[in-house]
Amino acid sequence: MTSGMTPGAIDRLIGLLARLPGLGPRSARRAALHLLKKRDGLMLPLAETLAEAARQIKPCATCGNLDVADPCGICTDERRDRSVLCVVEDVADLWALERAAVFRGRYHVLGGTLSALDGVGPDDLNIAALVARARGGEVREIILALNATVDGQTTAHYVTDRLAGSGIAVSRLAHGVPVGGELDYLDDGTLAAALKARRSV
Amino acid sequence: MTSGMTPGAIDRLIGLLARLPGLGPRSARRAALHLLKKRDGLMLPLAETLAEAARQIKPCATCGNLDVADPCGICTDERRDRSVLCVVEDVADLWALERAAVFRGRYHVLGGTLSALDGVGPDDLNIAALVARARGGEVREIILALNATVDGQTTAHYVTDRLAGSGIAVSRLAHGVPVGGELDYLDDGTLAAALKARRSV
Repeated sequence: MTSGMTPGAIDRLIGLLARLPGLGPRSARRAALHLLKKRDGLMLPLAETLAEAARQIKPCATCGNLDVADPCGICTDERRDRSVLCVVEDVADLWALERAAVFRGRYHVLGGTLSALDGVGPDDLNIAALVARARGGEVREIILALNATVDGQTTAHYVTDRLAGSGIAVSRLAHGVPVGGELDYLDDGTLAAALKARRSV
Repeated sequence: MTSGMTPGAIDRLIGLLARLPGLGPRSARRAALHLLKKRDGLMLPLAETLAEAARQIKPCATCGNLDVADPCGICTDERRDRSVLCVVEDVADLWALERAAVFRGRYHVLGGTLSALDGVGPDDLNIAALVARARGGEVREIILALNATVDGQTTAHYVTDRLAGSGIAVSRLAHGVPVGGELDYLDDGTLAAALKARRSV
């Protein structure tokens, strides 16, 4: 028993909450207790919203985004530039770019990165669909917005290879000093990249 | 919009998850995405368990514990010592003591501590019911297992005063070095209390 106490429903609740990222057994107990104390204001609305979202939200067959509609709201938005695709690992990255409101093209969500260690190969990712979209004739530029990790960069190289000869311009995000970042806290790799890509002022 | 993205159900879900203790906006987004990816394994079971727990779990009118039954399983457990009451601030503290399996009496949950700052007075806590239980004739000892904070100790003093003249033995938890704790990391107050309450070996 997770709580050491009897009530099965509480133990099940704590067990499920503990499976959320960022919550361990202890914070799951706190969250369960908080929910039980805010039954009408939080617990029941959360139960309903979870059920509703589980029913309504599905992946977009075109880009992999999560939305109530398929194709998703971004793919069907006529104000967005259909000639530029931004390739991201995960829907969380798409959300981050949308929050920044800096990109007005469309997206392609790979659903992860290649990883020899975790046994993730090209067929496990949404890469074939990306190549098909690239060949569709509409796309002129593909921006690889993948994480600057070993797996992210391996995936970027692989995708670049697969797109070679398609005549599409492939770019990646710039490396450098984060805005607001202090040099003293940056790693050597970032400093080297920022120095190499210096811009005249 | 929390996610910067459109789908209302996702934004509502993130907003509700962010109200859980231990989850901020960023971890709420991660949790929402994790749930959407584990629809059948986690999201729907969590929705059902939340609704079920909200329906079944209620506070025990006797002690303030949360359980499917009222009076709760601890209050009705005939194997537990009815002559000893352990007074705790919160159900989380009751769970902690039950996990430790070191107390075989019954509990009384105050539902908080007195706090001039937060405007919590004696009438906001489950204190009148405690005094009534103490006068019931069944209880011979009351253990105040309140947090060793200013508010916790203020509450302990107030409860002790209210129980004065009832002929009931009132005790509090011992202060000292936590088991497994290193002296180097302890505050001065704990060290002073541990020294003062030293035991011959």
